[in-house]
Amino acid sequence: MSSETRSPLPLLLRRHTSSESKNLATVSSSLLPAFGTVIDEGYLQLKKYTIAPYDRRYRWWQTFLVILVIYSAWASPFELAFKKVATGSLMPVDLTVDAFFAADIILTFFVAYLDKSTYLLVDDHKKIAIRYATKLWLPMDIASTLPFQSMYRVITGKMHQGDIFGFLNLLRLWRLRRVSELFTRLEKDTRFSYFWTRYCKLICVTLFAVHSAGCFYYWLAIHHKTSKKTWIGAQITDFEHRSIWLGYTYSIYWSIVTLTTVGYGDLHAENTGEKVFNILYMLFNIGLTAYLIGNMTNLIVHSAIRTFAMRDAINEILRYASKNRLPEGLKEQMLAHMQLKFKTAELQQEEVLEDLPKAIRSSIAQHLFHKTVEKAYLFKGISDDLVTQLVSEIKAEYFPPKVDIILQNEIPTDFYIIAAGAMDVLIYKNGTEQVCLNSFLFRQRAFLSSILYISKQG
Amino acid sequence: MSSETRSPLPLLLRRHTSSESKNLATVSSSLLPAFGTVIDEGYLQLKKYTIAPYDRRYRWWQTFLVILVIYSAWASPFELAFKKVATGSLMPVDLTVDAFFAADIILTFFVAYLDKSTYLLVDDHKKIAIRYATKLWLPMDIASTLPFQSMYRVITGKMHQGDIFGFLNLLRLWRLRRVSELFTRLEKDTRFSYFWTRYCKLICVTLFAVHSAGCFYYWLAIHHKTSKKTWIGAQITDFEHRSIWLGYTYSIYWSIVTLTTVGYGDLHAENTGEKVFNILYMLFNIGLTAYLIGNMTNLIVHSAIRTFAMRDAINEILRYASKNRLPEGLKEQMLAHMQLKFKTAELQQEEVLEDLPKAIRSSIAQHLFHKTVEKAYLFKGISDDLVTQLVSEIKAEYFPPKVDIILQNEIPTDFYIIAAGAMDVLIYKNGTEQVCLNSFLFRQRAFLSSILYISKQG
Amino acid sequence: MSSETRSPLPLLLRRHTSSESKNLATVSSSLLPAFGTVIDEGYLQLKKYTIAPYDRRYRWWQTFLVILVIYSAWASPFELAFKKVATGSLMPVDLTVDAFFAADIILTFFVAYLDKSTYLLVDDHKKIAIRYATKLWLPMDIASTLPFQSMYRVITGKMHQGDIFGFLNLLRLWRLRRVSELFTRLEKDTRFSYFWTRYCKLICVTLFAVHSAGCFYYWLAIHHKTSKKTWIGAQITDFEHRSIWLGYTYSIYWSIVTLTTVGYGDLHAENTGEKVFNILYMLFNIGLTAYLIGNMTNLIVHSAIRTFAMRDAINEILRYASKNRLPEGLKEQMLAHMQLKFKTAELQQEEVLEDLPKAIRSSIAQHLFHKTVEKAYLFKGISDDLVTQLVSEIKAEYFPPKVDIILQNEIPTDFYIIAAGAMDVLIYKNGTEQVCLNSFLFRQRAFLSSILYISKQG
Amino acid sequence: MSSETRSPLPLLLRRHTSSESKNLATVSSSLLPAFGTVIDEGYLQLKKYTIAPYDRRYRWWQTFLVILVIYSAWASPFELAFKKVATGSLMPVDLTVDAFFAADIILTFFVAYLDKSTYLLVDDHKKIAIRYATKLWLPMDIASTLPFQSMYRVITGKMHQGDIFGFLNLLRLWRLRRVSELFTRLEKDTRFSYFWTRYCKLICVTLFAVHSAGCFYYWLAIHHKTSKKTWIGAQITDFEHRSIWLGYTYSIYWSIVTLTTVGYGDLHAENTGEKVFNILYMLFNIGLTAYLIGNMTNLIVHSAIRTFAMRDAINEILRYASKNRLPEGLKEQMLAHMQLKFKTAELQQEEVLEDLPKAIRSSIAQHLFHKTVEKAYLFKGISDDLVTQLVSEIKAEYFPPKVDIILQNEIPTDFYIIAAGAMDVLIYKNGTEQVCLNSFLFRQRAFLSSILYISKQG
Repeated sequence: MSSETRSPLPLLLRRHTSSESKNLATVSSSLLPAFGTVIDEGYLQLKKYTIAPYDRRYRWWQTFLVILVIYSAWASPFELAFKKVATGSLMPVDLTVDAFFAADIILTFFVAYLDKSTYLLVDDHKKIAIRYATKLWLPMDIASTLPFQSMYRVITGKMHQGDIFGFLNLLRLWRLRRVSELFTRLEKDTRFSYFWTRYCKLICVTLFAVHSAGCFYYWLAIHHKTSKKTWIGAQITDFEHRSIWLGYTYSIYWSIVTLTTVGYGDLHAENTGEKVFNILYMLFNIGLTAYLIGNMTNLIVHSAIRTFAMRDAINEILRYASKNRLPEGLKEQMLAHMQLKFKTAELQQEEVLEDLPKAIRSSIAQHLFHKTVEKAYLFKGISDDLVTQLVSEIKAEYFPPKVDIILQNEIPTDFYIIAAGAMDVLIYKNGTEQVCLNSFLFRQRAFLSSILYISKQG
Repeated sequence: MSSETRSPLPLLLRRHTSSESKNLATVSSSLLPAFGTVIDEGYLQLKKYTIAPYDRRYRWWQTFLVILVIYSAWASPFELAFKKVATGSLMPVDLTVDAFFAADIILTFFVAYLDKSTYLLVDDHKKIAIRYATKLWLPMDIASTLPFQSMYRVITGKMHQGDIFGFLNLLRLWRLRRVSELFTRLEKDTRFSYFWTRYCKLICVTLFAVHSAGCFYYWLAIHHKTSKKTWIGAQITDFEHRSIWLGYTYSIYWSIVTLTTVGYGDLHAENTGEKVFNILYMLFNIGLTAYLIGNMTNLIVHSAIRTFAMRDAINEILRYASKNRLPEGLKEQMLAHMQLKFKTAELQQEEVLEDLPKAIRSSIAQHLFHKTVEKAYLFKGISDDLVTQLVSEIKAEYFPPKVDIILQNEIPTDFYIIAAGAMDVLIYKNGTEQVCLNSFLFRQRAFLSSILYISKQG
Repeated sequence: MSSETRSPLPLLLRRHTSSESKNLATVSSSLLPAFGTVIDEGYLQLKKYTIAPYDRRYRWWQTFLVILVIYSAWASPFELAFKKVATGSLMPVDLTVDAFFAADIILTFFVAYLDKSTYLLVDDHKKIAIRYATKLWLPMDIASTLPFQSMYRVITGKMHQGDIFGFLNLLRLWRLRRVSELFTRLEKDTRFSYFWTRYCKLICVTLFAVHSAGCFYYWLAIHHKTSKKTWIGAQITDFEHRSIWLGYTYSIYWSIVTLTTVGYGDLHAENTGEKVFNILYMLFNIGLTAYLIGNMTNLIVHSAIRTFAMRDAINEILRYASKNRLPEGLKEQMLAHMQLKFKTAELQQEEVLEDLPKAIRSSIAQHLFHKTVEKAYLFKGISDDLVTQLVSEIKAEYFPPKVDIILQNEIPTDFYIIAAGAMDVLIYKNGTEQVCLNSFLFRQRAFLSSILYISKQG
Repeated sequence: MSSETRSPLPLLLRRHTSSESKNLATVSSSLLPAFGTVIDEGYLQLKKYTIAPYDRRYRWWQTFLVILVIYSAWASPFELAFKKVATGSLMPVDLTVDAFFAADIILTFFVAYLDKSTYLLVDDHKKIAIRYATKLWLPMDIASTLPFQSMYRVITGKMHQGDIFGFLNLLRLWRLRRVSELFTRLEKDTRFSYFWTRYCKLICVTLFAVHSAGCFYYWLAIHHKTSKKTWIGAQITDFEHRSIWLGYTYSIYWSIVTLTTVGYGDLHAENTGEKVFNILYMLFNIGLTAYLIGNMTNLIVHSAIRTFAMRDAINEILRYASKNRLPEGLKEQMLAHMQLKFKTAELQQEEVLEDLPKAIRSSIAQHLFHKTVEKAYLFKGISDDLVTQLVSEIKAEYFPPKVDIILQNEIPTDFYIIAAGAMDVLIYKNGTEQVCLNSFLFRQRAFLSSILYISKQG
């Protein structure tokens, strides 16, 4: 066997193109068949004019729609409160957005779906259509897309002044389910930080709650018979004819003063209707506040786990050493070892590897230790097969300087190979220590030696 | 042995009718005798006219009573605050509800109970009666059921105007212990979501606190000598003669503004009595708010455990790979394997099975792997007993595509049977890889092979 | 060996009188010497006129003092705010309380203490006195006990009108360290519920904060030059000459409105001094609120662990069964077993026993299983020593009804003894199941059999 | 072998000087090379005029700068709000502080840095300069150091009255990254309590938020055209010409009333600009409050883990004993053992030692047990090597009084050496117990015996 055939690894690894494996990461977790499900051959070619749900371009289209959904979530309550905007400047924007969603409805008829019971992609157009139509999604999608006001104007030729269209516009909030789905997906995607994904979600929920409550509260004020007896009218006379900006600021200000439970009291419910809405909003806020705090606590608790583990381990060692009155030198060895252990945690994580199948673990060991073992004096000339088998049992360990590695008189159980650093052999004779051997393999930064060892138990 | 006797499983399973086992799930956790308690024969037949506490119809009756309790919890404080309602429109409803609870008192004498020390159902009528009478429940049940006001009217022939009956009505809140018991039971019942059960409980507690405090605060205002110097009278002159709806709205509005700590200040305590009640209510609210937030945090932390476990495992692998500079291909194999592992977690949960007794574990293994092992070429013709014994040691594993399963030169420890998917045998010769064998058993979706294996250690 | 010598247990157990062991529970955790510390003989007799810190009567005296401390904690801020009370009705009470604490100062000179470095009780009077005098405790104790105002009156013969004595009285708050010590001890004492101990502590801290802040805020108002420009004077003219009850109610009302962050705004800081105090109080409250919520969350999270464990295990089994399409009967067996496992958790807790030393574990096993094993047909007539040794390997297991215990053809690894209940032996022959043997030992409630078994691995 | 050569430990330990190992604790966690990185010899000597980042004096300089940063964080917003201060009394202080930071900029060119990819210290002046200049730090550092106002005055010879310099001063807040870095380092340093480090950080963040918001809110009021229509002007007429102290108190008061969500309402936004700022501040506060509570919860949960573990273990034992009706004496033995176990937890922590390498564990065992084993009667005269090997298998255990250590008839698996305390040997004969042997080695406090044992399995 020639020298370049020693390790089959480099070639093995070259085989894998990264694009395919990477794609796997973004595929939803439900793409797996139950054990033993028999699947017909040639399954993977989807029918013509059918799009796979994990198609890259379809994903981009979905992400683009989410941006439009955010606009809708803002615009729907706003147009309810400030009616002249709905029929004025925002009208063309709304129609454009609606057009995009109409396009998506049509597109959905061509997207294959995953059958939850068989875990198979269904690409039959009829089945797709039936599922879409029966699951309430189609009617709701259509209802949330139709521009009722424009249709009414086109049909009757005049503007309707009632609030009916404002409320019909709220149907567009149905689109919010897309945002919810997006966040569910992002939370599982390891390419994004869980902390910030979750954080964004909480901010979005809070802002939407504040905005909606503010707009609806303004709508209540507008529709009260006595302008003076409303929460805003008591402060600003003739508020209906002031600028939209002023009304919106007051609404949001009240909304957030209530949500955060600051409650200055400069704006407060004046009539029974407002009081009832206020009651409902505050009840909702209890839940929202608790949810925000709970989530934040969860994120903080999780992020602190590693720090706590490190500090606890070191504190326990210090306590053990001082309670048992261990000598100072021994205590420092213990401390130095623990700190090195936490610093090299990422290099050593044996528990990470335990979950992997044997072949992958062997590949990693080959990659890391093969060369070092081959170069070791003791293993010069042994067969490549034996090296391969030895390597799969090897573990790496780091030692801080001045730490004893093998004690005199101890029963030996491990076999060590010095991978980097130097080591002294001290023999204790006639009450003094004598340096017998001073092994300099190759010097590393002064305070660190890394060593490979094979444990008898391993 | 004929072919249909191969596995005794189908028949074994047919034996179990589902109704009996299912009932077990709803039986309270205390129905178990201590180890070695000797129980007399023929125990299971309860005496005539005795109802088992886990009788289905008795449970329905209890559930129905809980609905009435909710009404009582709302009505008692409400009737205290708004006295004319108590003697007016709600009077017949109250009497009907009281009648149902009177029926339940009588029924309780016929329901067997579980002795906490011996864990036996006691169906002796005398013992049941003694226990019910002595444990304070009987007097409290009767006191909370008697319609004092109606009795007074029947006896004296006139209406009493004092508040004594309003406070006596508060005795009905004793019934709330049933709701508390119901929630305790529901939290342990796996058929209901813990999250929503807990959520409902918190909402109920909050609403009851808000309602009670609001009503009592209104009662305080009604009974203050100077109407002008009360929290509501300072806002609405002559509030006693306004509608009940207005008074109730103001009460609840104040109550919830205080509970949520919004505290607008438009309604606030005007006299010393109100201030003292306000102090007590706010002290209570500190506890309630902390309890709400604590519970929410608990639920959120628990629900996030799985997501964190998945993300942490994958992040650790990425860190390990990059710190040790593993080649890109190997890193992707590791990643693909971990993701597949979490996706198939529900199919593989070995730790779930560990807790089960050996017979059940064997039955599961028979059900899952028997056919596959029988069909395997290697085991053709071996005795059915040997297959049964082999099967109980088998585990299933899923491999993502392009992952090495057995490395060349490696010491083999596991025996694999391909259950689904395909595999290539590559031999590394003269520096190139050659496909020797291309095993196509039956094709699955391209990126997945599931494999059975028997580990030497297993 | 006669029959009554079979088990040495009954006698062994009789030896232990419960009072001594119980005392152990209340001894503080620091009474333990380091490994290998040599202690002189006859150590346990304390010197004459010396009291052990864990003496029962001394503990009761300490507990009594804690009650007086609670009074002091209330009275000190109160007397600062309402000066006439301090020189009036509360004067004799204060003097009596001070007398008790003076007695405690003298007593402390006779109480042995525990040396933290050697873990030995020191009963040398001189050492006790030196330690008490040098550690700042003596001067602080004396300063917090001297009745300065009375002394001043006795010496000068007249009352001082300044606030100096009010502030000197605050020195008595030094006594609060006793309450803090008490709670630290109670939290470790398993005879008290941790939840309620902690709860009481939080309530005490909150009430003290509210009371102190309220009293000091009132003091600020009293000492402001313009009565009209104070938080209380702006509401009540001439408030200084109104009743103490009114002033105290307003103070506490303001204090708690601020602490709970309700902030109605009917009472608020009017001048700069009040604003500064308000700022400090609110800053403190952020911390207190977070501390309250954090503690509550901690208690709730801990109390829910068991429920979560149970629900998660059962849900995982349900998911595993449905994903792998296990037959309904098998699923029910799994479910029934898991539920029985959690119901019998308190009877089985093997992990509890693991921490105990071998002798205790053997004693428990003897107590639980000795009689059953002796009575078993198979072990009739074997030596008592052999039974004793068998028993220590035995474990108890509970089986729900209709569950398979040993499958046909399975390799047997465990040996079972039926302790209670009945079992059918079914042989699968020619495609049908035949009941061969129907073992009726003694009937238990229908749905439960408890079984002892010896595992080959055990 | 002479008596002083028995144990090589004292000498071994003398070798280690403590200063070097201690230094290790403060070195940042990233000073570790990846496995197998080859580093050239003589690496540790840094170039002339280059400072190592972990140099002691450089660290002190950094700590000193952090104090100046705290001043800057306070002064920048303050000078924005109260402009006359910026050009008046605080001017010289600001210039001095700026000078120190200018010195630090120059110093930075001489400080070696750690290359994140190779983990090597880079001491090449050119590389240091390039990295500093390109990473945006240099321009930001310079921008945050230049005293724009003084420069303008020197150049133009007159004072500028605009707000431009106030905002330019805010660039100094860039220095806050140093505080953030300091806290990150302190949290990992085990010499400081994590709780208090974290606590300080939270207080700093809160105070900075309160101060900044207050100052900016005052700036808003100053710059509004109608003084009467501002939050402060509505309360204090002509507030611009009142004292800085008054303005600052009002600002901080408003800021903290809002942050804590007290919201009295005596000061509140009057115009739209203030309302918008208020909205942003409150949104920020939701996050801050949740962050504070989350952190506090995290700290409390972590600190309670040990107490919970102890209480749970004891409660489980009590439950197990009472459910299985174990005799009182046995229950007390179990309890006494568990309590002793938790009291000696710090002396026994085997799990602490498990993580240490074998040589250190052996050293500890030698130190703790060598003398005791040598002195034991059974091991008198055996070779020192054998003692050394025996010692490494020994474990210490503490037994409460009156607890059985070895039961009669039991199969022995452990070998015990009594290290301290006494023990009775009781033989059960003819139904009574007889004291056969009463071993008094040396008496300890009555309730404790500590024992060494070698387990057969160990």
